[in-house]
Amino acid sequence: MVTQRDVARRAGVSVRTVSNVVNNFAYVSEETRAQVQRALDELDYRPNLAARSLNRGRSNLLALVLPLDVPYFTELAAHVVDQAEERGYTVLLDRTEGSAERERQILMRRDRSALFDGFIFSPLGLTEDELRSWAGDCPAVMLGEVQVEGVDHVAIDDTAAAKAATEHLISLGRTRIAAIGVPHRPKASAGRPARATAAHRSAGYEQALTEAGLPIRPELTVRVRRYQRQDGRDAMERLLDLAEPPDAVFCYNDLLALGAMRAVLARGLRVPQDVAVAGFDGIDEGRFATPPLTTVVPDKARIAELAVTRLLERVEGDKSPAVQLEAPWRLMIDESTAGVPEAGE
Amino acid sequence: MVTQRDVARRAGVSVRTVSNVVNNFAYVSEETRAQVQRALDELDYRPNLAARSLNRGRSNLLALVLPLDVPYFTELAAHVVDQAEERGYTVLLDRTEGSAERERQILMRRDRSALFDGFIFSPLGLTEDELRSWAGDCPAVMLGEVQVEGVDHVAIDDTAAAKAATEHLISLGRTRIAAIGVPHRPKASAGRPARATAAHRSAGYEQALTEAGLPIRPELTVRVRRYQRQDGRDAMERLLDLAEPPDAVFCYNDLLALGAMRAVLARGLRVPQDVAVAGFDGIDEGRFATPPLTTVVPDKARIAELAVTRLLERVEGDKSPAVQLEAPWRLMIDESTAGVPEAGE
Repeated sequence: MVTQRDVARRAGVSVRTVSNVVNNFAYVSEETRAQVQRALDELDYRPNLAARSLNRGRSNLLALVLPLDVPYFTELAAHVVDQAEERGYTVLLDRTEGSAERERQILMRRDRSALFDGFIFSPLGLTEDELRSWAGDCPAVMLGEVQVEGVDHVAIDDTAAAKAATEHLISLGRTRIAAIGVPHRPKASAGRPARATAAHRSAGYEQALTEAGLPIRPELTVRVRRYQRQDGRDAMERLLDLAEPPDAVFCYNDLLALGAMRAVLARGLRVPQDVAVAGFDGIDEGRFATPPLTTVVPDKARIAELAVTRLLERVEGDKSPAVQLEAPWRLMIDESTAGVPEAGE
Repeated sequence: MVTQRDVARRAGVSVRTVSNVVNNFAYVSEETRAQVQRALDELDYRPNLAARSLNRGRSNLLALVLPLDVPYFTELAAHVVDQAEERGYTVLLDRTEGSAERERQILMRRDRSALFDGFIFSPLGLTEDELRSWAGDCPAVMLGEVQVEGVDHVAIDDTAAAKAATEHLISLGRTRIAAIGVPHRPKASAGRPARATAAHRSAGYEQALTEAGLPIRPELTVRVRRYQRQDGRDAMERLLDLAEPPDAVFCYNDLLALGAMRAVLARGLRVPQDVAVAGFDGIDEGRFATPPLTTVVPDKARIAELAVTRLLERVEGDKSPAVQLEAPWRLMIDESTAGVPEAGE
């Protein structure tokens, strides 16, 4: 079957432009419209009429509800926007900062179905009851942190990834390996859903230590309130003040790791010689840090593709049971752990 | 007059919650509703009935259309969301990456007025004609880069700020001061509005050099395609390959500066001893870089406040002539230019 993508390639325009012509939107120039029409004719493109009929009354807007103060989500959002755009949808973002009130403000609007065809979000504030009742009557896919029964969910294997990062630090001969990012409230409480991601990362960290015969030292495990650079810096300061400070640290996201690295370097200590630092997220910022950051890189493009594909199946009426979809990840080893020797060493 | 803010303080809840109660939204718990109602009664709060009547038929949604791949805008967006929330509005973000098609997709929708009460945006792709005709029938405020006649605009004095940053580098005794970030297309062309910001920063850079009696050397002025870390790194590599490389560099945003700094450090050169590096934007990332980045810090909270205030005046029917609003900035001097001496030096 000829797709809009084929037509776009032939006409030398974007899929979005083809979609605009097919849907007879106003803002395509006459010249471009003619060019696309030629390609449509040449390829004998036939729109999926069932889909277009279903499509009536829709806004073609998807809502992406995320804490955008973390670059991981900003980068993930770019992929979601791309994936949705290829399918003719516009994505609007709502930044929540994990605030329950902000999540309610957008998710609980009475006109939400008129505004949005579907939702992709990473809820941090709503209660499990709210999420379940909400998700019951709205196409939705959840990402990351929180899982709720009966709602499609996309994530990576956080335990395996955290274990691999910790094993890498062990393989360098480090024995006092700290962890920064244990949540203050790791388990479900007060009607809130479990924040699964951090708990999974802790599990992977502990498994790696145990399998290597290393003790799990509570003083090397630091809780944080948020996942920002300053939290990582504060946590590392406390670790460096210990009588026996760590020789390596695994941070549950890259911002924590960049803050931790700053704390080490600001004391005149060296990364990785004195303290090896590993992060999680694979954000662009880590590649440009000095030294560049070793990190777990989730396949963000694949996460976005799985989430958008699943969501649009729901938008089109799929009522099958909820699924857990898993995307791949890789460990990117760089100078913050396995540094190239400095001149003179 | 008693405001919702007063009521919120008395009731010990957020302004948003008060607004939800006043507007009789569904998702406030009975307990909280009673608490707010007590405070409303005690303070004898009277809603602004004219405003509430005008408010009928509105979505209470604002659109913020920005290139979110630059942390400056992500941080600015947080302030806009806060400011709008205090006034009972929800902000949805559309990330454009400066693509004209994406801007059109959201700005040119036929149902835009049903979706959004107003727009705040930083357009990079639309033509001046499109912007003028669009802004004519939609409440809108523009930020940063582009100015269009007849549309309210909020910015800082880019020329003065760039001049101050360059003068700071001159005050350190540097004489070969490079600039990274000159746009490929500095002037209006092909119907596109002038990208004013970069041109203003170039003007400030050149004024500072000229007033100090230093030559403007074309080989030290590097054009970039985008304002990302990799562009800064590539530009700096070229500068370091010159027969006479620069001893300082002023970058038109922090991402360029962080990429430039990485290029210097990766060659085993020192910042600031061999090359002093200054940026522009005051993003959080720069404070955690090693060394921390000297940068121009626009007052983002004030920019957001001016933009939201002006936009809501337009939403409420203000038809007065368009204004240029200016927010303050400051130069934050840190170790990337005025480094503390290293131990042993």
